[in-house]
Amino acid sequence: MFRSLRRVQQFNCNLLTSQRVRVNSKLLICTSRMAASEYRVEQDSFGELKVPADKYYGAQTVRSTMNFKIGGPSERMPIQVIKAFGILKRAAAEVNKEFGLDPKIADAIIQAADEVSSGKLDDHFPLVVWQTGSGTQSNMNVNEVISNRAIEILGGKLGSKDPVHPNDHVNKSQSSNDTFPTAMHIAAATEVHHVLLPGLQTLHVALAAKAEEFKDIIKIGRTHTQDAVPLSLGQEFSGYVQQVKYSIERVKSAMPRVYELAAGGTAVGTGLNTRIGFAEKIASTVSSLTGLPFVTAPNKFEALAAHDALVELSGALNTVAVSLMKIANDIRFLGSGPRSGLGELILPENEPGSSIMPGKVNPTQCEAITMVAAQVMGNNVAVTIGGSNGHFELNVFKPMMIKNVLNSARLLGDASVSFTNNCVVGIEANTERIRKLMNESLMLVTALNPHIGYDKAATIAKTAHKKGSTLKAVAVELGYLTEEQFDQWVKPSEMLGPK
Amino acid sequence: MFRSLRRVQQFNCNLLTSQRVRVNSKLLICTSRMAASEYRVEQDSFGELKVPADKYYGAQTVRSTMNFKIGGPSERMPIQVIKAFGILKRAAAEVNKEFGLDPKIADAIIQAADEVSSGKLDDHFPLVVWQTGSGTQSNMNVNEVISNRAIEILGGKLGSKDPVHPNDHVNKSQSSNDTFPTAMHIAAATEVHHVLLPGLQTLHVALAAKAEEFKDIIKIGRTHTQDAVPLSLGQEFSGYVQQVKYSIERVKSAMPRVYELAAGGTAVGTGLNTRIGFAEKIASTVSSLTGLPFVTAPNKFEALAAHDALVELSGALNTVAVSLMKIANDIRFLGSGPRSGLGELILPENEPGSSIMPGKVNPTQCEAITMVAAQVMGNNVAVTIGGSNGHFELNVFKPMMIKNVLNSARLLGDASVSFTNNCVVGIEANTERIRKLMNESLMLVTALNPHIGYDKAATIAKTAHKKGSTLKAVAVELGYLTEEQFDQWVKPSEMLGPK
Amino acid sequence: MFRSLRRVQQFNCNLLTSQRVRVNSKLLICTSRMAASEYRVEQDSFGELKVPADKYYGAQTVRSTMNFKIGGPSERMPIQVIKAFGILKRAAAEVNKEFGLDPKIADAIIQAADEVSSGKLDDHFPLVVWQTGSGTQSNMNVNEVISNRAIEILGGKLGSKDPVHPNDHVNKSQSSNDTFPTAMHIAAATEVHHVLLPGLQTLHVALAAKAEEFKDIIKIGRTHTQDAVPLSLGQEFSGYVQQVKYSIERVKSAMPRVYELAAGGTAVGTGLNTRIGFAEKIASTVSSLTGLPFVTAPNKFEALAAHDALVELSGALNTVAVSLMKIANDIRFLGSGPRSGLGELILPENEPGSSIMPGKVNPTQCEAITMVAAQVMGNNVAVTIGGSNGHFELNVFKPMMIKNVLNSARLLGDASVSFTNNCVVGIEANTERIRKLMNESLMLVTALNPHIGYDKAATIAKTAHKKGSTLKAVAVELGYLTEEQFDQWVKPSEMLGPK
Amino acid sequence: MFRSLRRVQQFNCNLLTSQRVRVNSKLLICTSRMAASEYRVEQDSFGELKVPADKYYGAQTVRSTMNFKIGGPSERMPIQVIKAFGILKRAAAEVNKEFGLDPKIADAIIQAADEVSSGKLDDHFPLVVWQTGSGTQSNMNVNEVISNRAIEILGGKLGSKDPVHPNDHVNKSQSSNDTFPTAMHIAAATEVHHVLLPGLQTLHVALAAKAEEFKDIIKIGRTHTQDAVPLSLGQEFSGYVQQVKYSIERVKSAMPRVYELAAGGTAVGTGLNTRIGFAEKIASTVSSLTGLPFVTAPNKFEALAAHDALVELSGALNTVAVSLMKIANDIRFLGSGPRSGLGELILPENEPGSSIMPGKVNPTQCEAITMVAAQVMGNNVAVTIGGSNGHFELNVFKPMMIKNVLNSARLLGDASVSFTNNCVVGIEANTERIRKLMNESLMLVTALNPHIGYDKAATIAKTAHKKGSTLKAVAVELGYLTEEQFDQWVKPSEMLGPK
Repeated sequence: MFRSLRRVQQFNCNLLTSQRVRVNSKLLICTSRMAASEYRVEQDSFGELKVPADKYYGAQTVRSTMNFKIGGPSERMPIQVIKAFGILKRAAAEVNKEFGLDPKIADAIIQAADEVSSGKLDDHFPLVVWQTGSGTQSNMNVNEVISNRAIEILGGKLGSKDPVHPNDHVNKSQSSNDTFPTAMHIAAATEVHHVLLPGLQTLHVALAAKAEEFKDIIKIGRTHTQDAVPLSLGQEFSGYVQQVKYSIERVKSAMPRVYELAAGGTAVGTGLNTRIGFAEKIASTVSSLTGLPFVTAPNKFEALAAHDALVELSGALNTVAVSLMKIANDIRFLGSGPRSGLGELILPENEPGSSIMPGKVNPTQCEAITMVAAQVMGNNVAVTIGGSNGHFELNVFKPMMIKNVLNSARLLGDASVSFTNNCVVGIEANTERIRKLMNESLMLVTALNPHIGYDKAATIAKTAHKKGSTLKAVAVELGYLTEEQFDQWVKPSEMLGPK
Repeated sequence: MFRSLRRVQQFNCNLLTSQRVRVNSKLLICTSRMAASEYRVEQDSFGELKVPADKYYGAQTVRSTMNFKIGGPSERMPIQVIKAFGILKRAAAEVNKEFGLDPKIADAIIQAADEVSSGKLDDHFPLVVWQTGSGTQSNMNVNEVISNRAIEILGGKLGSKDPVHPNDHVNKSQSSNDTFPTAMHIAAATEVHHVLLPGLQTLHVALAAKAEEFKDIIKIGRTHTQDAVPLSLGQEFSGYVQQVKYSIERVKSAMPRVYELAAGGTAVGTGLNTRIGFAEKIASTVSSLTGLPFVTAPNKFEALAAHDALVELSGALNTVAVSLMKIANDIRFLGSGPRSGLGELILPENEPGSSIMPGKVNPTQCEAITMVAAQVMGNNVAVTIGGSNGHFELNVFKPMMIKNVLNSARLLGDASVSFTNNCVVGIEANTERIRKLMNESLMLVTALNPHIGYDKAATIAKTAHKKGSTLKAVAVELGYLTEEQFDQWVKPSEMLGPK
Repeated sequence: MFRSLRRVQQFNCNLLTSQRVRVNSKLLICTSRMAASEYRVEQDSFGELKVPADKYYGAQTVRSTMNFKIGGPSERMPIQVIKAFGILKRAAAEVNKEFGLDPKIADAIIQAADEVSSGKLDDHFPLVVWQTGSGTQSNMNVNEVISNRAIEILGGKLGSKDPVHPNDHVNKSQSSNDTFPTAMHIAAATEVHHVLLPGLQTLHVALAAKAEEFKDIIKIGRTHTQDAVPLSLGQEFSGYVQQVKYSIERVKSAMPRVYELAAGGTAVGTGLNTRIGFAEKIASTVSSLTGLPFVTAPNKFEALAAHDALVELSGALNTVAVSLMKIANDIRFLGSGPRSGLGELILPENEPGSSIMPGKVNPTQCEAITMVAAQVMGNNVAVTIGGSNGHFELNVFKPMMIKNVLNSARLLGDASVSFTNNCVVGIEANTERIRKLMNESLMLVTALNPHIGYDKAATIAKTAHKKGSTLKAVAVELGYLTEEQFDQWVKPSEMLGPK
Repeated sequence: MFRSLRRVQQFNCNLLTSQRVRVNSKLLICTSRMAASEYRVEQDSFGELKVPADKYYGAQTVRSTMNFKIGGPSERMPIQVIKAFGILKRAAAEVNKEFGLDPKIADAIIQAADEVSSGKLDDHFPLVVWQTGSGTQSNMNVNEVISNRAIEILGGKLGSKDPVHPNDHVNKSQSSNDTFPTAMHIAAATEVHHVLLPGLQTLHVALAAKAEEFKDIIKIGRTHTQDAVPLSLGQEFSGYVQQVKYSIERVKSAMPRVYELAAGGTAVGTGLNTRIGFAEKIASTVSSLTGLPFVTAPNKFEALAAHDALVELSGALNTVAVSLMKIANDIRFLGSGPRSGLGELILPENEPGSSIMPGKVNPTQCEAITMVAAQVMGNNVAVTIGGSNGHFELNVFKPMMIKNVLNSARLLGDASVSFTNNCVVGIEANTERIRKLMNESLMLVTALNPHIGYDKAATIAKTAHKKGSTLKAVAVELGYLTEEQFDQWVKPSEMLGPK
C-alpha cells in the first residue's frame, strides 16, 4: 500500500540512494530532507526515532545506523547473511506453527521471510558489519522488516508491532546469539555451494581439457626457475588440475561442521525458552529449504561461543588461494613475452594492450585472481583473530568473521570463473617456441650417458654451454657420435616417465 | 544535454541500479534492456561496444565490466582512488598546459577533473578492484570520463574523442604505471589526514580527559588477569592515552614515504615521453591542491615496482589496531557485569539491551572496534603479500593493496570516532565497586611489612585468604595491630609511585 | 672404528659444540682449531674442503655451512625431517635391492639409515633451514652421512665414496626434488601422530572429565562478557570438550593428502630414472616402517611443485590454535582473582606466586598455551606465503614450510599435555563463589514472567539494579509475591535446557 | 671451585647435552642419572628440588623445566634476552649501589652480570619461551644464576642465597613485569644494531655498486611480466638500492619507541618499591653500557601492558621482508636459464649444481632469503596477535613476542649478508643476451613515431610480430625507411629518461 503512495518520494530517494554505494551521508540527507509525511515515528525504550516511511525496518535498525557510522555502505552486512536470515525465519515460523503459533501470523511471517530470502527487500537492510559483535542489530533488522512486511500483508499499520511482533513472533524461540551463527552457517554453505564450488569446478574442467589438449607437447621443465629435464605441457597442466581437484575436496571436507546449526541454543546454548525438538526441526526445515544437509549442532555451547567451523572453512579457502596463486603465476610467466619472456603459452588477449605493441598481452586475468588470492589470505588472518577472541558463552566477532568468509568464497568463485572463461579456455601452446627451447636445452645430454658414458656426455654439455652451441653440433664436432646416433638416442619423448 | 533527454530511462534504470549494491548482474540487464536510443556505440581495437548513453565512461571501461565479473558492486575501486585521480589529472593538465597543451583543452580537463575529485561523477566509475593489477582500467575509466565530460563542456559529441582525447590529452605524459601508484599515495595520504588522524585525535582527547577525571580513583591493579598492587584509574587510562598518542606518531612517521609520488616515471620508471621537470611540477601541484607535502619520488623504479611505502603504512595501521584492541578489551572487561563481572566501569547504554535485564549494557562499541582491529590485521597480511609479489618493473597487486590500506584507515578512523562518542566520553567509574574491591584486596598487606615484618604480614594475608576475611579484621584479630594502626599504615594512595 | 680413535678430539669438540645451541661461529672455530689429524680432506667439483674427522657428513654439507650462515644452530633443519629421511632412505634401499642393487650395499645403507631414523646420528646434521629451497643440501647431508656410515660398516674409508656412493647408491632412483617433500610428509605425519594427536587426546579426556565433574554446578552465563542466563559449569566445559574433539577431527581430515608421498617423481615429477612400480613400492615400504597409511601421490607434478597438503594441515593447526586460545582465555578469566576477578575456578598453583599474596595463582599454563596459539597462527601465515610462491615444476620454500608445520604440531601437542597435566586436571570449581554470583544475578527474574507478567518482573529487576538489592528482597518488598513463591518459581536448575 | 671438582660429571653431562639440541628428554635423563654428589638440594615454597650441582640456577628454574616441557631446546629463551638481562642487572646493581646497596654485594652482582652479558654462562639458562607470559621464570633464572655466581665470587655456598639474595639483591627495585620488557627492548635494539642494520647496509653497498657497474647496460623493461620499453640494468638495480635504503630508514624510524625502557615501573607501572630517579638512572646506565640511546619510558603503564613498540618494529621488519622478497625474486628470474629462462644475469655458482648440466646455477641464496622473508611475515602476525592480547596492567605474551622479533631481525640480517656475499657481489650481466633481447624487442618501434607516423610504425610492429622478424628487417622490407635511418632513429639509449 505505502508503496504507491510513496512513489514520488521514493523516486527522489532513489536518485540519492543510487549514489549511496559511495557516500554514506547522502542516505542520511535523504532521510533528513523528507517532509513529515515521509517518515513515521517509532519508539523504543530509549525514546522516539524517525523511521523512513518507505522502509520496513524500525527503531532498533535506525538506532544502529546512528551509533555505528563506520565504513559506509560498502561495509554493509553481506546480503547473503540477510537472505540466510530469511530462510531461518521462515523455518522458525514453520516450526513455531507446529508448536502452536497462530497460523495466520506464521503464514504472514513465512511470506515476508521468503521475500527477504529472495532478495526483494534488500534495500531494507542498511546496517554495517561493524556493529554489535553478536550481530544482534542485524537480527533485529530482520525481525523488524519481516514483522512490518507481515503486518502489511495482514493489513496492519507499519510500526505497530501488531498483529506481528518482531520479538514475540518473528524471533520466537530464538535469540540473536543462536540465530546469527545459524545465518552465518547457512550463508557460508550456500555461497560455497552456489558460487565457490561451481567456480572451482568450472576451472577444473577447463584445466583438465587443456592438460588433455597439451598432452603430447614436450617441453623443458624448470626447477629453481632454472632449466631442467623435460616433461609434457599436459603433465605440467595436470599438476594444476590436481591442485584444483584437491581444492574442491578441501572445501568439501570442511563443510560437515559448517552444516551444523546453532539454532535452538538461544541465549547461552542451553536452549532456554525453546521446546524439546525445536532445534532438530529447525535444522531439518532449513535443510529442506536449501537442499543442503544441515543438522542441529550437537553442542550448542560450542556453536555460540566459538566459530571454529568458519575458521576451518577459511583455512580451506586459504589453501585454495595458495593453489590459485601458484597456477596463475605459472601461467603468466609461461606466457611472458612476446619476445623477451618464456613465451611458451599464448594467452588470450581480452582488452587493448599497448596500441603500439601487438603481441603485448597483459595477463590481466592472472593479475585479478592473484590479487584475490592475496585478499583471501589476509581475510583468513582476520577470521583467525576473530575466532580466537571469543569469551565465555559468546564469540562477538561474528559479523566480521562471516563477512570475510563470504568475501573469500565469493571472490574465489567469481575469479575462478573469470579466469577460466577469459584466460584458461583460450590458452594456446606456442609449440614452435616450446620446441626451440626444448631442443636447445643442455639437459638432454642426460640421455647420452648409457651410450657414451658420463664423462663424454659432461664434456659435450660443458662445451656446448661455453660455446653457446647445441649438444648435437658439439657432440658431432667432438667425434663422439654421428648426427644420426644423436637423433636416435636423444629422444625427449622417452624421458617423460619411469621405465 | 543528454541528461534531460534520458530522464525516463534514467528513472527505470535507477529502479534497477538502486538494487545494484547487491546484484551486479542487474546492472548489465539494465544496459541490455535499453532501447537503441539509450546507449551509444563505441569502438576500441577489439570491436564495437554498447556504452550506456548516460555514462561518461567509454569502451575500455565497459570491456572491463565484461571481463571482470568478480565480487559485485561492493568490490568497486574505492572512491578515494577515483577522487585522487581527479586531483592528479587536474595537476597533469595544469603542468601539460605549461608545457604547451592547448589551454582550451587543458581548462576543460581541469574542470572535468575537479568534478571527479569533488565526487560529482561517482556513478561513472563502475569497475571493481579485481581487474588488471596495474589499475590500468581504472586509469582508463578516469581518462574516458574526464575526456567525455570535457568534450561535453566544449560542446562536442560523447565518445568522439574530439576535441579531448582520453589518451593523448587526459593521459598526456602519463602511464597507468605511474598514475595509479600516484593516485594510491594521494588517496592514502588524504584518508590518513581526513579520516584516520582526526579519528585518533578525537579518541586521544577523550581518553586523556578520562585519565584526568579518574586520576584520584585508586583501584586494584591486575597482572596475569590476577589481583595485584594498586594504581589509580587515571594511571590505567594514561596507558591508553599513551598508546593512542603513539598511534598517531606511528602513522605520521610512515607518511614521508607515502608523500612520494610516482608521477613522471611513466611506463617503467624512466620517464620516457615526459619532459624534464614534469615529475617535480606534478608533485608540487598536487601538494598545492591537497595541502599535503607531496614530493616527487626520488627513484621512480622503486615507486612503480614496489609499494613498500604502503606496506609500511599498513604496518603502522596494524600497530594502531593492536593498541585499539587492547584498550577496547580492557574497557569491556572492566565494565563487565553488572553483578558478576569486574564492574569497575559503567559504560554508556546506547541501545536496548535485554528488555528484561536492566543494567545489562552490552559493550557494543568495544565489539565494533575490536572487529575493526581484527580486520585491519588481516588487511595488513593481504597488503604484505601483495607488496612482496611485484616483479621486474611493475608491481601488479596495486588495486588490492590500496583497497586494503584505505579500508584499514577508514575503519580505524570511523571506529575511533564511534567508540569515542558512543562509549569513551560516557564512561563512568563505579567508585563504590572500585573501593570495595580495593579494600578487599589482599595485596595491600604489602604496606605492613615495614611495621610488623614480613612474616606477620604474610600470616595476615594467608589467614585472610583462607577465612575469606579482610586484612584489617584478621590483623586486629591476630593482635598484630589496632584498627587505627591499620588505617594509618595501609594507605593505597601511597602505593602509586616511587618514593 | 674412528669413534675410539677420535675420542679426545671428540671431547674437545663437544666442549665447544655443547655451546653451539647459542653461538654458531663456535662450531666453525671448533673445525678450524683442529689439528691436521682432526679432519679429512674431501673434494667436490668446487675444490677441496676440510671435513671434521669425527663426522660422517662430507663436502657438500660443509660447503652449505659455509654458504648459509643464517640464524645459527637453533635454526637447524628439524630433526624430525632428518629422521624421516632415515626412513625414506631405508625404504629406497629395500626397493632398490628388489630392483637389483647389490644386497651388501643395500643392507649397509639400511643399517645406516636405521641409525639416522633412530636418532643415533643426530650430531651429523648441522645444516640450517635457510638453505636451498628444495632442501637439496639436507638430502645430500643425509646421503653423505648414510654412505659414510655404510662405508664404515663395510670396512671402507670415510669420504672415499667406495663401496657406497652417496649419489649412485644412497640416492638411487631419487632426486632431492622428490625425496625432500617425501621426508616432509613423513615427518609431518609422524609428528601429528606421535605428538599432536596424543596431546590433543590427553586434553580432550581431561576436559571431558571436568565437564562430567562439574555437570551439576549451576552458574551464571556470560555473553558480551556481561551477565546472562544460567548454565551449568559442566555445560560450559562441554563446549571446550567439543572444540578439542573437533580439533582432533580437523587434523585427521587433513591427513589423507599428507599421506601422499612424492617419492618416485624424481627431478620434475615424471619419474625419469626410476622403474615402473618404484613409487608404489616406496610408499608401501614407508607405510610398513611407520605404521601410517602412506600412499604414492597420484600426481607427482603437484607433489613437487606445490605443498598445498601442508598448507591445508597448517590451516587445521591454525584452527586448533584458535580453539585452544579460546579455552585457555576462558579458564584464566574464570580463574581470575582471588578477590577482584571472576573467581569461579580455582586453578592449580604450580610455582611460587608472590610470596606476600597467597591465592595469587598466575595462570601460567594458560599463558604458555596462548603464546603457542599465537605462534601457530603466525606460522600458518609463513606456510601460506611459502606455499603460494612455488614456480613451475618445483616449490622452493620447502625447508621453511616444514619447519613451521612441525613447530606448530610439536608446540600444540606439547602445550596441550603441559596445559592438561599442570592446569586442567587440577581445576576446581569455587562453588561458593559460583553460587553467590548465581544468586545475585538479575537475569533470574526471567523465570517470573509466566507468573506475574513481564511488566512486574521488569520492575523488580530495575529496582533491584538501582538499589543494589536482590530480586527476592525487592519482589517481596514490592508485594508482588512471597518469599516462598520466589523460591518455588526461580529455579536456575530449570533454566538449563529446552522444555 | 665446583668447576674443577665436577669435571668428570661435566664431561658425561656434555656427552648428553651435546645432543640436547634435539632431544629434550636427554637433558632430564642427564639430571636424573647423576649420583647424589652431582646435585644440590634447594627448596622453594613448594618443597625440595634437586638442582644440578654444576649449574648456577636454582629451584625456580628447575621447577619451570618441569612444568613447561614444551618444544625442547631449540625453543629456549633467545640468548639475546639473557644477555640483555645481564646488562640490565648490572645497571640495576650500579644504581642500587648509589641508593645504598652494600658495595661488596653490588660489585659481585656486577661481575656476575657481566659474565651473563658476555655469554660465559649461556649454559645456565635452560628455560623455554613457552613459560609464564611475563617471562617471570627467566627473570628468576637470571636472578638465581647471578646470585649464585656472585655468592661463589664472594666465597659463599651455592644455593644459600647468602650473602647475595636473588630477590632482595639481584632483583632489588625490580619486578619481572618491568625487567622482562626492559630486557626485550635492550635485546631488540642490540640485535637491530649489531646484526640487522649492518646486514642491510652490507646489502645496500653491494647493490649500489652493481647499480653503478650496470649503469650503461640498456635492457628491455618488463611490466606485467611482459616486454616493455627499455631501461638500463643500473636503473633496474637502483630500484633495489632504494628499497634497501628505505629498509634501513624504516627500521631506524621504529627505534625511538624501542629505546624506551620499562625499568622503574615494577609490578604494575606505578614504580612501587623504587626510588625517585631510579628509572632514569637505569636507562642512562643501560645507555652507557650499550652505547644506544635508551631512555626511561614516559609512561610505564603502557610499557608493561602493551608492547606496541615491538609490534611497530616487527611491522618495519615485515616491510623489509617484502622488499627483500621482491629483490630476490627479480634476481632469480633475471638469472633464470641458462637456455630457457630470461638469462640476463649470471649468478655466482656456489655449490655443485647438477653434475651433468653445466650452467645450471640454482639461485640458492635467493631461495634462502625469500624463505626468510616468508618467515618474517609469519612472525609479524604472531607478534601482532600477541601484542593485541594484553589485558589490564600486563601483557603476558612477552617471551613469544620477543622471540619472534629477534628471530626476524637475526634472520634478515644474516640472510642479507649471506645473500650479498654469496650472490649479489658476484652477479654479472649477460650483456650479449641482454643486447639480443633488447634488439629483438618490438617496443622499440615507439621511437619511429615522430619520423614515419604512428600508423606505419604500428604496421611495422604488427608485421614483425606476425612474421617473427625484426623491426629493422620489416621496416626496410616495407620500404618505410633505410637501414641507416633505422639505426639512427631507433636508439634505446635515448629512451631512458625525460627530455
